[in-house]
Amino acid sequence: MSDFQFAPGFRAAGGRCGLKASGKPDLALIVADGPCTAAGVFTTNQIKAAPVLYDQAVLAANAAGVRAIIANSGCANACTGPQGEQAASTMAQSAAAALGCDPGAVLVLSTGVIGVQLDTAKIAAGVQSLAPALAVAGAPSVAQAIMTTDTRPKTASTTLTINGRTITLAGVAKGAGMIHPMMATMLAIITTDAQIAPELLQSALHHATAATFNCVTVDGDPSTNDTVLLLASGAADVTIDSASYDAFCTALTDLSRDLARQIAADGEGATKLVEVTVSGAHSVSDARTIARAIARSPLVKTAIHGGDPNWGRILAAAGIAGVPFEPQLLKLWLGSVQVVASGTPCAFAEADAAAQMAGPEVAIRLDLGLADAVGQAWTCDLSAEYVSINADYRT
Amino acid sequence: MSDFQFAPGFRAAGGRCGLKASGKPDLALIVADGPCTAAGVFTTNQIKAAPVLYDQAVLAANAAGVRAIIANSGCANACTGPQGEQAASTMAQSAAAALGCDPGAVLVLSTGVIGVQLDTAKIAAGVQSLAPALAVAGAPSVAQAIMTTDTRPKTASTTLTINGRTITLAGVAKGAGMIHPMMATMLAIITTDAQIAPELLQSALHHATAATFNCVTVDGDPSTNDTVLLLASGAADVTIDSASYDAFCTALTDLSRDLARQIAADGEGATKLVEVTVSGAHSVSDARTIARAIARSPLVKTAIHGGDPNWGRILAAAGIAGVPFEPQLLKLWLGSVQVVASGTPCAFAEADAAAQMAGPEVAIRLDLGLADAVGQAWTCDLSAEYVSINADYRT
Repeated sequence: MSDFQFAPGFRAAGGRCGLKASGKPDLALIVADGPCTAAGVFTTNQIKAAPVLYDQAVLAANAAGVRAIIANSGCANACTGPQGEQAASTMAQSAAAALGCDPGAVLVLSTGVIGVQLDTAKIAAGVQSLAPALAVAGAPSVAQAIMTTDTRPKTASTTLTINGRTITLAGVAKGAGMIHPMMATMLAIITTDAQIAPELLQSALHHATAATFNCVTVDGDPSTNDTVLLLASGAADVTIDSASYDAFCTALTDLSRDLARQIAADGEGATKLVEVTVSGAHSVSDARTIARAIARSPLVKTAIHGGDPNWGRILAAAGIAGVPFEPQLLKLWLGSVQVVASGTPCAFAEADAAAQMAGPEVAIRLDLGLADAVGQAWTCDLSAEYVSINADYRT
Repeated sequence: MSDFQFAPGFRAAGGRCGLKASGKPDLALIVADGPCTAAGVFTTNQIKAAPVLYDQAVLAANAAGVRAIIANSGCANACTGPQGEQAASTMAQSAAAALGCDPGAVLVLSTGVIGVQLDTAKIAAGVQSLAPALAVAGAPSVAQAIMTTDTRPKTASTTLTINGRTITLAGVAKGAGMIHPMMATMLAIITTDAQIAPELLQSALHHATAATFNCVTVDGDPSTNDTVLLLASGAADVTIDSASYDAFCTALTDLSRDLARQIAADGEGATKLVEVTVSGAHSVSDARTIARAIARSPLVKTAIHGGDPNWGRILAAAGIAGVPFEPQLLKLWLGSVQVVASGTPCAFAEADAAAQMAGPEVAIRLDLGLADAVGQAWTCDLSAEYVSINADYRT
């Protein structure tokens, strides 16, 4: 983790500006050496935080000319009305002034408590002290500065070769709960040194997010602030075109899955990562919908926490996903042990099934027997620790 | 509770047949003196337990000639395939033989662990010992015999006067979790001595259930076994017609709400009943959808458990309900304390808001400011005790 770097063409810095009463890191800057193409995927919650609205406007106007991202934890700047929208703009201006670029070239991210106005004076002072520290080696401190109830920073990087030249994809994420401040803010910042048109970049990010970040559920609820940003610096001097798009998309999806799994594994109070795979569906969308319904069920999550191979809860959760299937065709596996065939229980040894749930990763696979599409979702177990974290998060 | 009776025209008995390893009550009979009209509302889960399928067939064929209900706890008879369907039929035959009626006049209810075949020999022997005990005074033992993780039996009764004559509505329910066996089985049996045509009875039950039982959420998931049955004996010699239908419907809804609130208050691990009221919606359906989304949120439920007036979680939960609204029009109250106006926080004293969450009942009201429709939902807080109950339910 301490060796983590963003893609070539980016420098970064993370530190403290005093938004968090704990004194932990709460401000980060990522700056590109030149204009980047940029893409974003945002929360579907009707209540969108001010930074989400700000970024949507920046991307609509200037998706080929983004220079920087400024991110804070400790305050979500959500449910803050017109004053909050002004604060998001002021935050971008602080970064733009320090970096010598236009405020319309700066994206902003916030996570923290809802309904509290952002202290833009602290942000401005923090930018002044962070800007001189911008460096390639600063990337790990960004992963730290965006953490809320996360217990560990989340980073991932990968390379791929296109026409004999190497490009890099590297990103950070935070999740943990997914809660902080309220409803599970999930933030991710991904960088690449590929050259790619804004429309292609946005298409690749939508594709990757649909298969990964959008298939993580800890509380089941999208936050007011959820955002995934992707910046492409072009520093590798490799252009992604229609011939190389699929390879780029696959690499981006793999990287996103890596970060998404880290988020699920570090869910609040989590002791296990749970991967749900639904196969035999009519469409990938159907398969993901059922996988998410299983991953969202508190009954499934508590059974996994207890190491209880309570497969009936898994079938019942599938049954309310809203996707038609034939109960008598269902097959279910816990790890490598098949527990259901033809919709009724197989003869299996309880101890064998329980053993599949004993490790840090639990794999559930449900086959619908209808067609060939597959989808996945990730979550964590639901522990008493989750309750104690969330019963007293704010006070 | 010990004085509870079903409506005139019904006798009942509850006792033990050995399905529960604990030796607690697990079998109940409710028998009418003559043919009843009957109505039922069943789970929307695609995976329907055998007794649900059986009852749907009985009501389709014989809704004006039902004589009895037989109910067991300790085994859900769900995910049990053709053998389970045969067992539901055998269960009805056992009751019919003991009572001297047709099996097609008997409704069956089961709750308990999924995927285990029902021991119909135990049921048959239990019926033999219960049948001689059938009595008006047996009603409280029915409420006991259908309990699973419920901590207390749930009963309610009311009367109303139509054309100078009194009719009675009386029912029992179980919920608790709503989990047992898996996904929160909710069962209710309501009786009345009114005379009412099957179509009107079904219509009244749909109306009442939509506003009450279907607005309770503990885990958020309908079980494979959820069932509400309503029998009308006609013993009061009062016929419900179009003139008296509204009054009957209101009384039935009030009774159902009473039972629904008891279910929510006794959710697994619950320490508080939470009533969510959404007003100012375009339709009752919209209001209920948002109320249910708030009531379902684990983040809202844990905050209430901790007595934390974390109102942002409530707005964020509303924002993902799928019902359009205008964030800047939202008003929110915790008990009598308004915490949000125009979508942003009011000036309120944290201690005042926290005090609204200190008692055994917590009232949340969200006004959308769009129109005049109102809807409610009920849930309980989410405690560490919930996790420990469910982490080890089956093993």
